[in-house]
Amino acid sequence: MQFRSDIPTPALLLDLDAFEDNIKKMASHLKARNKGFRPHGKTHKCPEIATELINAGAIGICAARLSEAEVFAEHGIRGLLITTAVVGADKIARAIALARNVPDTMFVVDDEHNVGAINGAAAGGEPIKLLIDLYFGRTGIEPGPPAVRLAKIISSLPNVVLEGLQSYDGQAAHTTPFQARGDRTNGNMAKAIATKAMIEQDGIGCRIVTGGSTGTYRFDSENSGMTELQPGSFIFMDLDYEQIGGPDGDRYRDFKNSLTVITTVVSTPPGFAIVDGGYKAFSTDRPFTPRPIDLPGVAYGWAGDEHGRLDLSTSSKTLKVGDRVEFIPPHCDPTVNLYDQIHAMRGDRVEAVWPIAARGKSQ
Amino acid sequence: MQFRSDIPTPALLLDLDAFEDNIKKMASHLKARNKGFRPHGKTHKCPEIATELINAGAIGICAARLSEAEVFAEHGIRGLLITTAVVGADKIARAIALARNVPDTMFVVDDEHNVGAINGAAAGGEPIKLLIDLYFGRTGIEPGPPAVRLAKIISSLPNVVLEGLQSYDGQAAHTTPFQARGDRTNGNMAKAIATKAMIEQDGIGCRIVTGGSTGTYRFDSENSGMTELQPGSFIFMDLDYEQIGGPDGDRYRDFKNSLTVITTVVSTPPGFAIVDGGYKAFSTDRPFTPRPIDLPGVAYGWAGDEHGRLDLSTSSKTLKVGDRVEFIPPHCDPTVNLYDQIHAMRGDRVEAVWPIAARGKSQ
Repeated sequence: MQFRSDIPTPALLLDLDAFEDNIKKMASHLKARNKGFRPHGKTHKCPEIATELINAGAIGICAARLSEAEVFAEHGIRGLLITTAVVGADKIARAIALARNVPDTMFVVDDEHNVGAINGAAAGGEPIKLLIDLYFGRTGIEPGPPAVRLAKIISSLPNVVLEGLQSYDGQAAHTTPFQARGDRTNGNMAKAIATKAMIEQDGIGCRIVTGGSTGTYRFDSENSGMTELQPGSFIFMDLDYEQIGGPDGDRYRDFKNSLTVITTVVSTPPGFAIVDGGYKAFSTDRPFTPRPIDLPGVAYGWAGDEHGRLDLSTSSKTLKVGDRVEFIPPHCDPTVNLYDQIHAMRGDRVEAVWPIAARGKSQ
Repeated sequence: MQFRSDIPTPALLLDLDAFEDNIKKMASHLKARNKGFRPHGKTHKCPEIATELINAGAIGICAARLSEAEVFAEHGIRGLLITTAVVGADKIARAIALARNVPDTMFVVDDEHNVGAINGAAAGGEPIKLLIDLYFGRTGIEPGPPAVRLAKIISSLPNVVLEGLQSYDGQAAHTTPFQARGDRTNGNMAKAIATKAMIEQDGIGCRIVTGGSTGTYRFDSENSGMTELQPGSFIFMDLDYEQIGGPDGDRYRDFKNSLTVITTVVSTPPGFAIVDGGYKAFSTDRPFTPRPIDLPGVAYGWAGDEHGRLDLSTSSKTLKVGDRVEFIPPHCDPTVNLYDQIHAMRGDRVEAVWPIAARGKSQ
């Protein structure tokens, strides 16, 4: 499998030139503003990509889940931050084992009973590093007094230590247009920064404020209170991120589309071409569908678990069985989570095949 | 991991009692009507489940894709039928290798150039067994003269042999109400059976007519022209199949829900409980969302890739961090395709953990 045309379909492809440009742009943007760069590994779940990000200056990698972080740790990644609370005795035991093995690992908490359980399980070693997860619409505890109260509980316990605040606003990432996005993230990050000041006034250390996304990095990186950013999708981009809008009101073009799915035409009923990519080849959580590359005016329609239907009625293009069609996916993270490997392409040459080693690791 | 409460979440669970009842019901229904039972493996992608089906009397297993069939073959499953055309020189070479290794394997075709390529690659061994895929709205060639023409081409070539017709109508499976479903499948299967007669009139053997689904099996199994059925979802069921309607106009209850996803509450912002199952834990290709078990009146809402939101505002139930919530998934096949393993449960006991060995094998 040396060339694009040799890759069995459906398959996930990464344009390395675009991918490397995306990483360079984000890393240099954050470095110039003196912000830590801890990109989110939930997007790629791939140790080789995590390593590329570390080599570009990342101080660590976020993981959505403990099992995802365990995979990154096995592959030598350090500076791990697990961004979902670790709940239940078994997971807490695994989390502590991970922290003993990789001491700079951090975990988020938003519940005092969970904090108590972690503290209780962590006796006899270095304190477990915690961030308080702040609520901006999904998980977390309310900024201000509720978070300060939880900080005091953490500070009162011997086997946990507060490192700072997890201040991630998932909805801000996709707020449109551009300025409304800025207003939303600036408003919510200000609540986090005020909470940090309240905690510090109580004499409790709280050095980190981490958050931000591919959608909000321009704002968060100018915010003096943010210490680090955790964007994920910028490495790949997708149709969803394109639609959030840029500063000029047009498409969001800060980063390049580097991720595609390649399919093959397997049947050509009159007026249509059926490709071998359906619900198992693309995530379906967005209202729009994969966009075929190099087929202007041709729309993709879902045709079940295994197939997609290209409507050729409005196109001068013809497609025959065996032709290949490549698509930009609607939403990168859950699309990547469907594949076991990603083909790293230099032009039409397969430079490497990287296992998506943490695929399915949501536990 | 011995009990339900030990399973790290999110996880896929199979209620073995319901699963075994479903298999018994379908197998005995088809046996009583003298129909072959070749259930579709795309639903489960799990060699252990394929083996259970064979043990219950299945004559083989369908696979949506070559790589899925290769996994079943490695695990000793025979009677394989690959229900998507195998296109391109590399896949054809793999298909022939599979047929040489497992001689009763069958492949579908709908394109004469593809037939020619298979024939050309298959010299020097037993002829490759083919079914003509008939078009009822997705893939395939039109029944009647176009299919007969393709049958003649196959019959004229030395290294391929026509075994029959793949007569699968994916849309019929979900046509509502019940009688419209019957009308649709009866109408389309009649076209297949007439095509078989036309092919046989030309002196070409065409012994198999295979098709049918969990939605249409009651009709297809009464159809004297159908030789075998290939239902898939009946082993698990899901919310989608429930909605197609039964003969009484109520929910479709021919089979039991045996498949669930178990999650944990990881955060409890006011009015809500956030569980650790989102786009990576459930397929999202249906307009409705996972249904929580034992939480009447509580609706699940998507909260991104990693989370779901339970609205507790209209419920007297309270949930705390660490509580577990189990769901019936909207659509079984693409949900199963998100997981590496399935926990086979006898009541609350984990009787086995079965690898979903063909997960992601869509190539």
